[in-house]
Amino acid sequence: MVLMNLSYRTNYLHTYFKTTVVIPDTGKTNYTAVWLLHGYTGDDSAWIRHVNIENLARKNDWAIIMPEARNSFYSDSAFIPYYSYFIDEFIPKMQSLLPISTDRDKNYIVGSSMGGYGALKIAFLNDDKFSKVAALSPITDIEHFRDNPKGPMAKETFDAIFDSPEKVAKNQLINIFNNRQPKLQILTLCGNNDFMHEDNVMFKNFLSIHAKDHYTWMPVEGDHSWNTWTANIDKVFSWLA
Amino acid sequence: MVLMNLSYRTNYLHTYFKTTVVIPDTGKTNYTAVWLLHGYTGDDSAWIRHVNIENLARKNDWAIIMPEARNSFYSDSAFIPYYSYFIDEFIPKMQSLLPISTDRDKNYIVGSSMGGYGALKIAFLNDDKFSKVAALSPITDIEHFRDNPKGPMAKETFDAIFDSPEKVAKNQLINIFNNRQPKLQILTLCGNNDFMHEDNVMFKNFLSIHAKDHYTWMPVEGDHSWNTWTANIDKVFSWLA
Amino acid sequence: MVLMNLSYRTNYLHTYFKTTVVIPDTGKTNYTAVWLLHGYTGDDSAWIRHVNIENLARKNDWAIIMPEARNSFYSDSAFIPYYSYFIDEFIPKMQSLLPISTDRDKNYIVGSSMGGYGALKIAFLNDDKFSKVAALSPITDIEHFRDNPKGPMAKETFDAIFDSPEKVAKNQLINIFNNRQPKLQILTLCGNNDFMHEDNVMFKNFLSIHAKDHYTWMPVEGDHSWNTWTANIDKVFSWLA
Amino acid sequence: MVLMNLSYRTNYLHTYFKTTVVIPDTGKTNYTAVWLLHGYTGDDSAWIRHVNIENLARKNDWAIIMPEARNSFYSDSAFIPYYSYFIDEFIPKMQSLLPISTDRDKNYIVGSSMGGYGALKIAFLNDDKFSKVAALSPITDIEHFRDNPKGPMAKETFDAIFDSPEKVAKNQLINIFNNRQPKLQILTLCGNNDFMHEDNVMFKNFLSIHAKDHYTWMPVEGDHSWNTWTANIDKVFSWLA
Repeated sequence: MVLMNLSYRTNYLHTYFKTTVVIPDTGKTNYTAVWLLHGYTGDDSAWIRHVNIENLARKNDWAIIMPEARNSFYSDSAFIPYYSYFIDEFIPKMQSLLPISTDRDKNYIVGSSMGGYGALKIAFLNDDKFSKVAALSPITDIEHFRDNPKGPMAKETFDAIFDSPEKVAKNQLINIFNNRQPKLQILTLCGNNDFMHEDNVMFKNFLSIHAKDHYTWMPVEGDHSWNTWTANIDKVFSWLA
Repeated sequence: MVLMNLSYRTNYLHTYFKTTVVIPDTGKTNYTAVWLLHGYTGDDSAWIRHVNIENLARKNDWAIIMPEARNSFYSDSAFIPYYSYFIDEFIPKMQSLLPISTDRDKNYIVGSSMGGYGALKIAFLNDDKFSKVAALSPITDIEHFRDNPKGPMAKETFDAIFDSPEKVAKNQLINIFNNRQPKLQILTLCGNNDFMHEDNVMFKNFLSIHAKDHYTWMPVEGDHSWNTWTANIDKVFSWLA
Repeated sequence: MVLMNLSYRTNYLHTYFKTTVVIPDTGKTNYTAVWLLHGYTGDDSAWIRHVNIENLARKNDWAIIMPEARNSFYSDSAFIPYYSYFIDEFIPKMQSLLPISTDRDKNYIVGSSMGGYGALKIAFLNDDKFSKVAALSPITDIEHFRDNPKGPMAKETFDAIFDSPEKVAKNQLINIFNNRQPKLQILTLCGNNDFMHEDNVMFKNFLSIHAKDHYTWMPVEGDHSWNTWTANIDKVFSWLA
Repeated sequence: MVLMNLSYRTNYLHTYFKTTVVIPDTGKTNYTAVWLLHGYTGDDSAWIRHVNIENLARKNDWAIIMPEARNSFYSDSAFIPYYSYFIDEFIPKMQSLLPISTDRDKNYIVGSSMGGYGALKIAFLNDDKFSKVAALSPITDIEHFRDNPKGPMAKETFDAIFDSPEKVAKNQLINIFNNRQPKLQILTLCGNNDFMHEDNVMFKNFLSIHAKDHYTWMPVEGDHSWNTWTANIDKVFSWLA
């Protein structure tokens, strides 16, 4: 098992970004790739600081790619055009540097909290690139999130990214789903004490209808914290397998 | 000589930031600290990737602290309140973790390009914390920089940070200098082929009058690139010593 | 919480070594220090790759220092005079760089497998520096270990370190204990299916007699693997607290 | 340009080793690979701490791979069977992980001091894998080196690796060359004030006769230090190109 720390200049983002990768050294040329996204306040080291990611990689002989996203919400903004970077620069860069598959059937995307939102958005918009998406405690309704007094993000920071009602609407997961009707396997979970649990239940109800044959809801306990994600990430990876 | 890579959560910035430190292991309890700032597109690894920083640290037995600044312009914005973070969280954090002096006479701040702007701004506003500042090819006039077609930064990104004419004015180095009349040693340099050379000459003329007994202009050749900064950083450190 | 990766030249070892540190940023000047040692085949990243070390640090507001030991057996040999380095160079270097206490009452040493042997040896020889030692599945009898067909280490590699019967004898934990009669709190544990379980029981019986008022045996299940150490490290830290 | 830090378990060495890689992100699938070896006391970070390696990589669009070798002398010993690891595990591992060529015409090996010895030995024994080798201030006669009072290595450490006269003889570069008659381009250099300058001149004389049509001697000034290597590494890379 190889732990890689990558630091590179991105032309999209006009700066250096970091990515952490765990990749088996079993000699394959096209490992299944799991793109594992961190939440608000995290960075590329967030997952490996909380979870034994190497165990998860070893179990299925998968590569796990953990990009730095800063607090970009995995979205294009004046400050960081992160979504465009992710699709147009980051994925191709990783695919050219690492022995990972470009086949959608061997690419899964997973994230927690803001990273759950990011995973769902990226997957819904790119079901040609990903065949499965799993979101742990995702932000399912960004407008509710903005106005939720329990949320961690200052409204002005949110508004620096989503700077008009049109942009908020365009980036709502339900709207993206309705527009694109993506075809891929979807899993979501959210702890029963999560401050966004109600939003997640509504999203579950939506997907149960509109994505019914390819949607899984995983009922779990817990709040909006790493406790919930560390307790369930193994089951999420088992679902992916 | 010890190379340290630090990764930590910042409460000001609601995320993890990284800092690279080079510090002698000669047993001192209060090393002189040089705060060395990177430019636009850089990160905490920019200086050590271009210059043998350990040699500079060894020569004077100094600690050299290279913070990540992202493309924040070392300024408070809705997206990153970087200036407040730097003064109120970052400096105290480093001073509590590392055996560095808190005495202004043993604290110098240096940067290139956007980092030169940052060094000058931070120093002018905090001459109780720093006794010397050196700026290599600094952005001396942010309004000119914004509108300069040769500049690397999209206008909308600039405007996401400096989002009103008042904010631009408040962050102009000359205005800060005039308001505060800072008392510290100042050095600037700018290559004769730099696209901001003219701005730097005007700034030199201003400082020659208003900071005359504590200002040094170091005439150098070159353009706005690492070639100029690697060619002159030794001389800048000799001036600091 | 700060994650630090340190790389530095050691004069004792004639090369560069790495150390990983997790240290709270709560502003203390003399954190309690836990020196956490890896086993055979490990390196300074071994513990953080398997366990959420930051959680353990946060719980008690302790610094946790994880040195690289290579396969030195924490002992002086022609190839690596590691023990001398650890005592005479490494500990003072960390104490001069980091805001950690030099008081024995605030210094604990912990390790697993070869690191458990190292922790016990270092503690027995330096009870002026450490007040508590905990060993998870330690190698308690190096001569048995050398000849145990289940052991991971080639005999010739062992013999390159312990190159005479006298040196083996001098480095046996029981002999060190008998010679020095160290006074500090001691904890050992060993899974019931560990291939060195019998040796550990004998060592427990020895310490129960000779260190009776300051010795604790923690009965646990499991084999000689990270499964056992990850399952019990929390309890070990609770014992330290 | 991507800077990669790799940490992985090696089965040959029964532990974790680190490698630093600089690799362009220009999308190639089979970059020319330069294997760049550090000297005694160095580690995988030695070259990037002294030289702007990214510039060298950019100039020719090459990948540069800097393995950790510890003080192994790039040789098999009881403590570290490094040579076998390098050939049988390390090179294949890097070739399976990275988009680098396996063609000998696109593989060069370079090193300084002990790394110069290593580069020459590995190249002489594997001219099917490498088409060019360059050695900066190499240790050309290990027996002289052992007994040279100016050398940095304790005799007992040397003897822990080369533990018999037969092993010394077998590892002398001239003997390896005579046995194998390797066919590849060879460059050596050694500063005129190097304490091993005389040995290098003798080696030059040997190669001038026995490898005459594919040997280059690069006359340089300086002593046995990074000053000499940083002053000449650009010219060495120009020779490779």
